[in-house]
Order: sequence, then structure tokens, then C-alpha cells
Amino acid sequence: MRDATPEQMWDANRAGTWNQPTSGTCHGFVQANLAILPRKDAFDFFRFCQRNPKPCPVLEVTDIGDPEPKLIAPGADLRTDLPKYRVYSNGELAEERTDIVDLWKDDFVAFLLGCSFSFEHLLLDAGLPVRNVAQNINGPVYRSNRDCVPAGDFQGKLVVSMRPMPPELVADATTITAAHPEVHGGPVHIGSPEALGIADLDAPDWGQPVKMEPNDVPVFWACGVTPQQVAMEAKTELMITHATGHMFVTKLRVE
Amino acid sequence: MRDATPEQMWDANRAGTWNQPTSGTCHGFVQANLAILPRKDAFDFFRFCQRNPKPCPVLEVTDIGDPEPKLIAPGADLRTDLPKYRVYSNGELAEERTDIVDLWKDDFVAFLLGCSFSFEHLLLDAGLPVRNVAQNINGPVYRSNRDCVPAGDFQGKLVVSMRPMPPELVADATTITAAHPEVHGGPVHIGSPEALGIADLDAPDWGQPVKMEPNDVPVFWACGVTPQQVAMEAKTELMITHATGHMFVTKLRVE
Repeated sequence: MRDATPEQMWDANRAGTWNQPTSGTCHGFVQANLAILPRKDAFDFFRFCQRNPKPCPVLEVTDIGDPEPKLIAPGADLRTDLPKYRVYSNGELAEERTDIVDLWKDDFVAFLLGCSFSFEHLLLDAGLPVRNVAQNINGPVYRSNRDCVPAGDFQGKLVVSMRPMPPELVADATTITAAHPEVHGGPVHIGSPEALGIADLDAPDWGQPVKMEPNDVPVFWACGVTPQQVAMEAKTELMITHATGHMFVTKLRVE
Repeated sequence: MRDATPEQMWDANRAGTWNQPTSGTCHGFVQANLAILPRKDAFDFFRFCQRNPKPCPVLEVTDIGDPEPKLIAPGADLRTDLPKYRVYSNGELAEERTDIVDLWKDDFVAFLLGCSFSFEHLLLDAGLPVRNVAQNINGPVYRSNRDCVPAGDFQGKLVVSMRPMPPELVADATTITAAHPEVHGGPVHIGSPEALGIADLDAPDWGQPVKMEPNDVPVFWACGVTPQQVAMEAKTELMITHATGHMFVTKLRVE
């Protein structure tokens, strides 16, 4: 599926013939995190995203009850067109499934947030190493000691991803990603994991440890796991998300 | 008040000793458009702003019922600290007043949107002419033929401001403002007023005509009047805004 179009990916998931992770698929198109909430929680969640744009870069918020993201993926159906979903009930994972047709309600609002798969693509195209890609692992993700700006019941710590960079390329990695606020923007922290409250880089809270080369500097970016984690901690009555790595492919181009 | 702090401006309005337009006051601080809506309309309005970031650059959305913009103006009170307010009822201007203390309800949400006063400051600092400032007028503002992206009941035409620029400075005016999406960003249109549906530059829909120098090119930016106009056309039951030119001064710095 490397060179598939978004429509081909949507169709394959709708037909149940793909349902795999989307990393490396649909080259050149922005992939998105999904979070679906009922209307009563959606306004607080929207404010949370607006106040924390680095972990929560809003690409689209759908109209109430409408499963089609008309602006960034016209023709798609968010109830069927992702490979895999997770359903959270009162902050606990209730189930994983490959569609949510029978769960959909007419007060649901879907948030599509930029995903770092897109900026890894930018780094690679610029000739920078992305070690988790080279090592074929889900890169490490950590809960930091930094507070997000709260909104309503949504509050919690910033979650960060880490990518090791050779010292002479840290500046390039910074400027390239800073130009793309729609997919998390520039790093939130460079160097010292301790200062970010991370005691051991080899014990990530999500994903897998990445092998660092000698002299590599750890570079930390805000991560799209943040809003999901915050909603779980708020014990939100109902939230439906993509399953880890099983993202929604949009029609937006990575530029 | 040119070198007043935001706090001094808030206090003066709270005490009723200022209540004048804010253009040229509080040098170096970002000024904001205000729109207050009841919660039932706020989520649609928020989506409208997210979908139309050039006319509606969201600086802060307050918590429900909270008149303090805690993030960009901690300590301020949006019920008293602007020089003048307008109250719209079912899309019609109902009254102008200098505070809204007795109108405030615990389901009100306030939107603060970036204002072009801040980018005029950027242009002036860069040595570019801002003719409406030099001519001491409220610059011309026009309804364009371009549709905004709708959200719920909110839909309508993009409203634009126009500033004439000498041909050799159009590129500078573009790059300088494009770097500041929080105050409308770069121009939406350069040249031909006709192509934007504007038949006569000397007959603006708001503000006053500006005298152009020979060879000046009309440069158009998205205008913060857009969301107010769209809410009026939607005949929103209740909306409270700043009065034209009587903006809210934030603690954000123009950089």
C-alpha cells in the first residue's frame, strides 16, 4: 500500500481487506489521529486542543453527527475507513474493532489531529536519520513532567515522542519540523531527559526503546497520545480512537 | 495611552475613564476582537473559526461562564475591561454600552481573535507605509465574493481589509504578515479588486476609503469583521462583541 491513494486505503478498510498499521502507506499524504467524543464533551476537548496545539494540532473537527470529514477527506466515512478502532468507556479500554457503524450516534463529533508519521516523512526526505524507522520499531513515547493547559475536565501531562539525532543534525531536525505546526511542529525539548522527568530512556511508557548511536542527542516532540491519555484520565464516559499505529489517511499532502 | 500597559488599559475601562478606540495604544501588545456567545452556539462558532483561520485566528476561547481570559490576559475581566461593547439580538444591533456586567450569564463563552492593528504595527516597524494610519482614518473594509467554509448555521462571505502598497513593497508586506498567522497572516488577494467582487474601492462596506498613491497596488487581508458578520447573518439569538475599533488589549507581545 506504499503508493496507494487515500481512497484505496479507505476502501480496503471498509471492505475489511487491510486492517493493518498505516506506517509507510499512502506515501505523501498526511495521516491523522482520531478521537470521537459525544457533543457534551466535545467543546471542552476542542478547547483543550486549541490550548495545547503542539500535542493536539487540529486538522478538522466534523459537524455534529456527521462521519464525513468534508474538508480534509471528502467521501471518507470515519465509521469504517480506519484499519482499527479502540473504544474507551469511563477511561478504560473496552474493546478493539474494525468498524464502529453500530456504535455511531447522531451527537458524535470527530477530531482529526496531525500525526508524527507525516513529519518522519519530512525528516527522511531531507536526508535525516529516523532511527525508529531504520530499526523497524514503534518509537519510544514517554509521559513528561510538563503540564498541559487544562480545559474543563481535561488536564494532564504532556506526552512526548523521542527521536535520537546526531549533534550536527539537531538544528535541521528542529527547523524542518518547526515549519509544520500541523503535525506537532518543532521539538518541545532537546537533550537532558532528566529535566523532562524521564528517568530511563530505555523504559518508555509506550512504544519500544530505540538504539542510540554514540553522540546522538535525544530530541523530544509533543505526541498525539497526549489528548487520548488526558481523556482517559478524565474518565470520559465514551471516547473512540484509532488503534495505535492504525491511523486515518487524509487527502492533505505532506509538503 | 500609547505606552500604557494592558493592566492600565483594563483599569481605565473598568473605571470608565477611557472608553475610547484602542488604535495606537499599549504599544507592542496584541489587540483582540471579542465575540461572546452562549454555549449552545459556541461549539458551531468555534468550528467556524477553526475552518476559517485567516479571518478568525483564535487566540483564546474562555472556559464556559468564566469572564477571565486566563491564558492571554490573566487578571482581566471581559465584562468591564474593553472600552465599548455591542450587543446583537437575533442579528440586529440592540445597543452599545461600556460594560456588560448585568448581561453576563454562566453559560457565556468568549472568543478572542487576533486583530489587524497588531500587524499594522509590524508593517510600520518594518518601514512600510500603512496609508490608513498616515491618513488617520479607519481603513476600508469590503465584503468579498469568496465563501467562508461553513459550520452549523454560520456561513457567509469573507470580509477583507485593504491596504495600498507601492509595487516594490508588496512582497515585503506579504512575507512579514505571512509569518503572523495569529493576526490574519498573509494577504488573501493582491491586485484586481474586481476578481474579488469589489466594484468600487471608494465605496467600502465598512470603514473609510483610503487615498492611494500613483502605482499603489491594493493588497487584501482577511478581516476580523468576518465572524461577526457571519453571526449576524445567522441571526444568532445573542452575541456580544467589542465596538468597532474598541478592542481588547491582551498581554501577548507583538514580535
